[in-house]
Amino acid sequence: MNRLEEKTIKSDHIFSGRVISLQVDEVELPNGKTSKREIIKHPGAVAILPITNDGKIVMVEQFRKALERTLVEIPAGKLEKGENPLECARRELEEETGYVCEKLDWLISFYTSPGFADEIVHLYVATGLSKKEDAAQLDEDEFVNIVELFLAEAIQYVEEKKIYDAKTAYAVQYLQLKESIK
Amino acid sequence: MNRLEEKTIKSDHIFSGRVISLQVDEVELPNGKTSKREIIKHPGAVAILPITNDGKIVMVEQFRKALERTLVEIPAGKLEKGENPLECARRELEEETGYVCEKLDWLISFYTSPGFADEIVHLYVATGLSKKEDAAQLDEDEFVNIVELFLAEAIQYVEEKKIYDAKTAYAVQYLQLKESIK
Repeated sequence: MNRLEEKTIKSDHIFSGRVISLQVDEVELPNGKTSKREIIKHPGAVAILPITNDGKIVMVEQFRKALERTLVEIPAGKLEKGENPLECARRELEEETGYVCEKLDWLISFYTSPGFADEIVHLYVATGLSKKEDAAQLDEDEFVNIVELFLAEAIQYVEEKKIYDAKTAYAVQYLQLKESIK
Repeated sequence: MNRLEEKTIKSDHIFSGRVISLQVDEVELPNGKTSKREIIKHPGAVAILPITNDGKIVMVEQFRKALERTLVEIPAGKLEKGENPLECARRELEEETGYVCEKLDWLISFYTSPGFADEIVHLYVATGLSKKEDAAQLDEDEFVNIVELFLAEAIQYVEEKKIYDAKTAYAVQYLQLKESIK
């Protein structure tokens, strides 16, 4: 097996924002040559696959400025500093959808773009849902529409590219798999 | 349904690199207030799920500087300017693994991190594989180990977090789904 590690020679900090920061690392490659790596640092995120008692998936439609379009996604949000992912998932579910859950089970975690970013998403399945009296409490720059879909409708949304992101595609496929091995 | 669109008031270009660029947009929110959006522009990428004639998945182990660790991933690579995703998939499969394929079928495309990046991954399934005489032709800053896994081993790799990224987790789950509905 080849040695693969890249040693950092120098790290240039380029930008720190509200969500992400950017650095460019100069690295020594396994063959001794050098190259540059552009790296986005991200606090990490959670996503929640909420299933209602009558078997619907609760999703949120929101505008994604990076894409200049809306997507229908499972609820998700960034980890606050020092925040436990499970607690973050409970908070984001309630804030974005107005639902609270009895059960919140970790399903999988994955890096979204390992080629240039350290963002990780921790995905949970929420069941035993009930709607809180008061509506969803969004962040002040957050605007969403709640969309509740049966699995067949969600699959249709994937085909129509209304659902068009990795975490939501993974979650829909997870339910297909679960359904098929029932 | 709420109106969700965010209008661009101003766009500040921060950085252009070899792979990504960064801009910060000032936007008008649906309620008339303003906010800022940090946006990474990426050329888009392809990923290939290559299945050998004896049912193994061909993957590549590579060092991911953003994570300071190696991951085992399905072969993938960035689109070159104006490149057709299907042709890019054929090229990347051959360059990274040394395999050529008879059949290359589009499976799904998805955005990886819609909250801050426009990166899209086009995922293909490659079958009818044969090894070329000459070995893989990697980019000059690319070092990989080829890993061939049966599905059960790949599932084990997901559990052990050797496989730990969204596109590869999606691809493994796709094969599980396909297997379960046989």
